[in-house]
Amino acid sequence: MDVKAAVAFEAEKPLSVETVRLEDPKEGEVLVEVKATGICHTDEFTRSGADPEGIFPSILGHEGAGVVAAVGKGVKSVKEGDHVIPLYTPECRECKSCLSRKTNLCTAIRATQGKGLMPDSTSRFSLDGEPLYHYMGTSTFANYTVLPEIAVAKVRPDAPFEKICYIGCGATTGVGAVVNTAKVEPGSNVVVFGLGGIGLNVIQGARMVGADKIVGVDLNPAKKSLAERFGMTHFVNPAEVEGDLVPYLVDLTDGGADYSFECIGNVNVMRQALECCHRGWGVSVIIGVAGAGQEISTRPFQLVTGRTWKGTAFGGARGRTDVPKIVDWYMDGKIEIDPLITHTMPLEDINRGFDLMHSGESIRSVVIF
Amino acid sequence: MDVKAAVAFEAEKPLSVETVRLEDPKEGEVLVEVKATGICHTDEFTRSGADPEGIFPSILGHEGAGVVAAVGKGVKSVKEGDHVIPLYTPECRECKSCLSRKTNLCTAIRATQGKGLMPDSTSRFSLDGEPLYHYMGTSTFANYTVLPEIAVAKVRPDAPFEKICYIGCGATTGVGAVVNTAKVEPGSNVVVFGLGGIGLNVIQGARMVGADKIVGVDLNPAKKSLAERFGMTHFVNPAEVEGDLVPYLVDLTDGGADYSFECIGNVNVMRQALECCHRGWGVSVIIGVAGAGQEISTRPFQLVTGRTWKGTAFGGARGRTDVPKIVDWYMDGKIEIDPLITHTMPLEDINRGFDLMHSGESIRSVVIF
Repeated sequence: MDVKAAVAFEAEKPLSVETVRLEDPKEGEVLVEVKATGICHTDEFTRSGADPEGIFPSILGHEGAGVVAAVGKGVKSVKEGDHVIPLYTPECRECKSCLSRKTNLCTAIRATQGKGLMPDSTSRFSLDGEPLYHYMGTSTFANYTVLPEIAVAKVRPDAPFEKICYIGCGATTGVGAVVNTAKVEPGSNVVVFGLGGIGLNVIQGARMVGADKIVGVDLNPAKKSLAERFGMTHFVNPAEVEGDLVPYLVDLTDGGADYSFECIGNVNVMRQALECCHRGWGVSVIIGVAGAGQEISTRPFQLVTGRTWKGTAFGGARGRTDVPKIVDWYMDGKIEIDPLITHTMPLEDINRGFDLMHSGESIRSVVIF
Repeated sequence: MDVKAAVAFEAEKPLSVETVRLEDPKEGEVLVEVKATGICHTDEFTRSGADPEGIFPSILGHEGAGVVAAVGKGVKSVKEGDHVIPLYTPECRECKSCLSRKTNLCTAIRATQGKGLMPDSTSRFSLDGEPLYHYMGTSTFANYTVLPEIAVAKVRPDAPFEKICYIGCGATTGVGAVVNTAKVEPGSNVVVFGLGGIGLNVIQGARMVGADKIVGVDLNPAKKSLAERFGMTHFVNPAEVEGDLVPYLVDLTDGGADYSFECIGNVNVMRQALECCHRGWGVSVIIGVAGAGQEISTRPFQLVTGRTWKGTAFGGARGRTDVPKIVDWYMDGKIEIDPLITHTMPLEDINRGFDLMHSGESIRSVVIF
């Protein structure tokens, strides 16, 4: 079938909206009509050429929501008409990772997904007979896309696509880091570095689970009011702290953070996030993605005296199991999404979404098909 | 009273056995007749002058076992005649750390202990009217020592002092890292870097809890046979591995270690220990003490893809609660100590114990009073 897609023909160039060919879903695959998709920093990371593993020409996009339009042979867990969120982290429930009960990082289709291909090592998209590559196994910058069955989460039908698409990446990453990775307990003191979309979701995740102090750290004071709406109790602008930031935060949290979260991707901040944790038990979670080749460092004494350094991808959420729950939390009012969707636009204007990201005007832009 | 002690008058010098004065225990303190004490690398770290926080003149020693000879006012948990192990990590059961249920690093007397003093900020030891400093709150290189009540673990009376003194540090550090810090599950694959005393105790801890593969890594092939006796299933000599060690270990453990332990104190090995862990859930525990100012590094991607970096001190063991259990494990044959005590000597020959450590002849030397 012919579908409308924003194609990334090469790195650094704006996306180009084209009519491309999409093949029918094969065995174990699902055709999804994409109703809405967020534009995430990770799409920009690849578009800009900064991603050393970026593949072109490709159809980017990984934060979508839509409706199952058709299913391939053997598909049992979803049917035509089901509302779904595409998953860049699938959940096969059969691989060593899924069966470990310790991680969400399903490895069933990792090799082909990393090459921009479906599990049978081919692409479903093409233009003028030449294949276009998939992206993160999702390619939601198209009004229809094909995904493996294990890479769609079935969600309730009354949830609005243009909001819950954000659960396909940003909301789950932030809220999930709190709930699944750190397992923050009620009464905890939490420090969040970076008050962009991920940081705000960490903050509301911490609020949801009953954290006590929720400290937000950002150089931009304009971030304060929205962060407070999401549950931040203390705002710290490092530019206004006299002396070192780490002892200031340790003091503010009565000995150190029980949990800290790095939501920027800055390796120096990652170190601060670890070192502001409480001696004996503080856990620091890295969410931000650092530049290629960059390294984190600390003195091992920080760990020997009881701090733990870990990271999270997709908030530690198992896509098919946990994403529908987060949609419920949104619909039940336990978490907010609406204030984070600051701009919407048709696919034709998708490049404006990237511009808004660069200018810092948007928290999240969503393309509505 | 007059007691016999090995005094460290200044850094780098051999210890000097002297008759020194020991005051009676004050309120909340206990007089212990030390029956045996191990000589640990940490004593040597301070004696040699490498410890930036070393204080002289002092009475070193922190791995002892003995009998309560007298108690000060208000002491309730032990009485004269009780067999005890002195604790350099006390357990007050009342401070924020003890009550957190998340750490063994009691902070009740940390400030004075670090200054070589008893909790009332004075020393009990003196020579010719001049104070001698305590060391690690224990000072077991003396046939009598005074400790706070919260710094002695009462143990069963039928356990031999010259063996269970090792539970005052080495055995608990290694076994506890497995049991308390990593919480290794049955069937886990474990990699242990460094097959000295700590590494061997990690290995037998892993065996005790039912680990599957227990891989030992050491440059010295002479370590192999004893490590195998303690439960090592695979020996890897990095000098004999073609190519990089990390992918070799990942391959050997079917995707990576579930748990790894660094028992050397080498920051480069700490990185290898982290990176040989399994994607998604591998946990690396730092036990070794690195040189002053040295740092560990890795790419944050290692953590974001599910590895956890942590550390342990005194094996995460709560001294008064867990040390008596480890004594039971020894008496029940669940762990071995006897083959690790390779040399014994009277206090007069204590410097020979340090010589044996340097020459690599001993695993552990024990002074028997």
